[in-house]
Amino acid sequence: MRFPSLCRSLLLAAALPATSLTVAAQSARVNATDSVNIRKIYDEALARGQSYENLRELTGRIGGRLSGSPQAEQAVQWGKTTMEKMGLDRVYLQEVMVPHWVRGAKEKAQVRGAKGKGISLNVCALGGSVGTNGKIKAQVIEVQSLQELAALPADKVKGKLVFFNRPMNPLYIETGRAYGEAGDQRRSGAAEAAKRGAVGALVRSLSLAHDDFPHTGTMRYEDGVAQVPAAALSTNGADELSQLLKADKNLTVELEMSCQTLPEVKSYNVVGEIKGSKYPDEIITVGGHLDSWDLAQGAHDDGTGCVQSMEVLRLLKASGLRPERTVRAVLFMNEENGTRGGNKYAELAKAAQEKHLAAMESDGGGFTPRGFSIEADPATVRKVQQWEPLFVPYGSGDITPGHGGTDIGPLKGQAKALIGYNCDDQRYFDIHHTAADTFDKVNRRELELGGASMAALIYLLSKYGL
Amino acid sequence: MRFPSLCRSLLLAAALPATSLTVAAQSARVNATDSVNIRKIYDEALARGQSYENLRELTGRIGGRLSGSPQAEQAVQWGKTTMEKMGLDRVYLQEVMVPHWVRGAKEKAQVRGAKGKGISLNVCALGGSVGTNGKIKAQVIEVQSLQELAALPADKVKGKLVFFNRPMNPLYIETGRAYGEAGDQRRSGAAEAAKRGAVGALVRSLSLAHDDFPHTGTMRYEDGVAQVPAAALSTNGADELSQLLKADKNLTVELEMSCQTLPEVKSYNVVGEIKGSKYPDEIITVGGHLDSWDLAQGAHDDGTGCVQSMEVLRLLKASGLRPERTVRAVLFMNEENGTRGGNKYAELAKAAQEKHLAAMESDGGGFTPRGFSIEADPATVRKVQQWEPLFVPYGSGDITPGHGGTDIGPLKGQAKALIGYNCDDQRYFDIHHTAADTFDKVNRRELELGGASMAALIYLLSKYGL
Repeated sequence: MRFPSLCRSLLLAAALPATSLTVAAQSARVNATDSVNIRKIYDEALARGQSYENLRELTGRIGGRLSGSPQAEQAVQWGKTTMEKMGLDRVYLQEVMVPHWVRGAKEKAQVRGAKGKGISLNVCALGGSVGTNGKIKAQVIEVQSLQELAALPADKVKGKLVFFNRPMNPLYIETGRAYGEAGDQRRSGAAEAAKRGAVGALVRSLSLAHDDFPHTGTMRYEDGVAQVPAAALSTNGADELSQLLKADKNLTVELEMSCQTLPEVKSYNVVGEIKGSKYPDEIITVGGHLDSWDLAQGAHDDGTGCVQSMEVLRLLKASGLRPERTVRAVLFMNEENGTRGGNKYAELAKAAQEKHLAAMESDGGGFTPRGFSIEADPATVRKVQQWEPLFVPYGSGDITPGHGGTDIGPLKGQAKALIGYNCDDQRYFDIHHTAADTFDKVNRRELELGGASMAALIYLLSKYGL
Repeated sequence: MRFPSLCRSLLLAAALPATSLTVAAQSARVNATDSVNIRKIYDEALARGQSYENLRELTGRIGGRLSGSPQAEQAVQWGKTTMEKMGLDRVYLQEVMVPHWVRGAKEKAQVRGAKGKGISLNVCALGGSVGTNGKIKAQVIEVQSLQELAALPADKVKGKLVFFNRPMNPLYIETGRAYGEAGDQRRSGAAEAAKRGAVGALVRSLSLAHDDFPHTGTMRYEDGVAQVPAAALSTNGADELSQLLKADKNLTVELEMSCQTLPEVKSYNVVGEIKGSKYPDEIITVGGHLDSWDLAQGAHDDGTGCVQSMEVLRLLKASGLRPERTVRAVLFMNEENGTRGGNKYAELAKAAQEKHLAAMESDGGGFTPRGFSIEADPATVRKVQQWEPLFVPYGSGDITPGHGGTDIGPLKGQAKALIGYNCDDQRYFDIHHTAADTFDKVNRRELELGGASMAALIYLLSKYGL
């Protein structure tokens, strides 16, 4: 690309406070000051944003931080110390007991049988799975769904490894929808397989990429049903196994995993707070989750949400915009395999009879912002949507009804609105829950623009309420 | 991230033909068939898109392909062969003479003097620069702009290397605007420095990242002004040199570059065509540029634009949507340092008295689509904007007046509308014109969604005209 002869950007409102004033004037619920203040927030983020360097520290110094691990505890201390240095009104921990599952050293699967003998499949244990207690060697039966499994005669399943191989639907524009629809295999595959006498489950990784990374993620057992091991196969591995099965229905797979669940461990949510200047008792929460899966650094999932939430407080302070309502950044513990932190936060809020106005969550990666989804009654959704014109110049003006988030979910009924921060989602599931979710996948500007978009909406909420 | 309890996506129109019909009904200029046909195009792209594999071949097998190089000629043959395999109505070459500048083997800069002695700066020659003919060793004078240089007394500049160090403005949301504004240093720095007796120019790389990659790009000499060498410094290198100069104004930099301009070479635009079923004489062009800078693979600049333009033809064919007007994919030669291909295309079109309806260009990278900028009279812009609702479900509905593109620019006055395809631009300038513009920076879905967005608008143009 060379220099455009007629600069497209000069025709757009972006970055022009004067034009933003006109935009603001279109909305009855805001005044001209708001667009100027929002511009201040974005300027601060783009010129001096701290999210990226904070994320470098969290991912580089601590890395993966599964609930119960020493790294999760280091992350708690890091979050507390980092927020203490920010000069907030209050920084504190909320104690919470969390599950403690460990992967262990052994994790492999090999094909046996006439075809494909000795081929190693790229696997990882699903979070929460029991280990294999030595090795399991069994024939494999491939299905596309829980429904297909349920329709099979029991003798076709008994003693086998059930291989769930339905891909995420590539046709959806919104990747999260495809993730949600394919996820029942990972979540319930092992339990459904065990009900029919299977000895384990192999699940195609939830990914839209074709590569060798197995994607972990949580799975559930059912009371009264045998607990059998469950592993994820990389998408390439799943395709290969499916091909091999076409050539040899009787091939076997040997699976060995040494994962196990240890006793629960004490851990913490980390909370930082700026007291509201006018309505200190009305609380706005903004958060991400501090725990991550263990395979990599938990950069996009969800280091980015943590550093953005902390950055919201810093941006408000640095821009001289003391919020009229109390704003809390919360680094939730244990989103990935329990939501214990999210539950504890709502429980303590209820017990203390706190008044929660709104809660926002960032847990979809640190990509270029697009907007927000609002989980609230229709009138409240419309109130938030009136602010859209203020976000359009920043590419974040897509405000729709929709899901808030997992960690803020338990606040439903306590807070007037649960708000999901949304960003570009095309790349997210390529790396989600894999060894590839690393700091180098995060772009500084995309990350900082996200924090600014979140701060801008928090600023409006703190000023106008709902 | 885990599974949302209430799936946000279910509330959105994306991927639901039934909903798209409603969307289409809002627009007077389209009928319900259009949204179904556009859905077909996106489905084809997401399920069986070929852009990504074509790009893998172009970047991996051929790599960087500066005008006049053997690789550029390989790329011409590759483009022709690839389009011939697509079963188009016509594939042909348009001969054009292009500049032939070569970097040569030597390219280095070292700091001399009391402070920083022996420090190597990461540099690369700017495209078109003369070499140093041995080594140049000179004191350095730092300026922030051409204006600052012009205001300096001549004796402050004479015999020195002028160091242009104004960064791209990080506060603009649209990165292309910052690129455009900072670009005069790269484009005219050497000529302006030479007018005041300088022996060369060092230019801060046009980048929003802080790293060690020098960014090349074209520069111009002026008739009657001495031709002095011009090199780009990485942003980290520029910051370092600026610091060193604060400590020692008299330090010198030793620059050695063996680049040179060779005689012009015969090259080609590559053109593939589907004849219009109703109005074969009305032509719609869609293109990217086949040449790239030599430092890397030219993946985002502009391999992506080339494979997307070819993909537009394939998507129309594979979706069974024979265009009513003629659609041409053009792989332009020599966008980077001459626009000879773009000029030749318009010249031949004029000579043949062709009737050009519209021309579209993709030269901003292969990132997630956002929309289009339309360079046309206001009434024509509004006509295109009426189709916005059809693009909103795909996140590509941002249709604004603005710049079309460099290669289609010469068609101004011949075509009714010049259309720039726009995608997310936050990451583009981090890698633009550097050794880091490689295939691994391109995401398959982002790239294929771009080609689908382009094909959808070409489909509408071919059906309705302007």
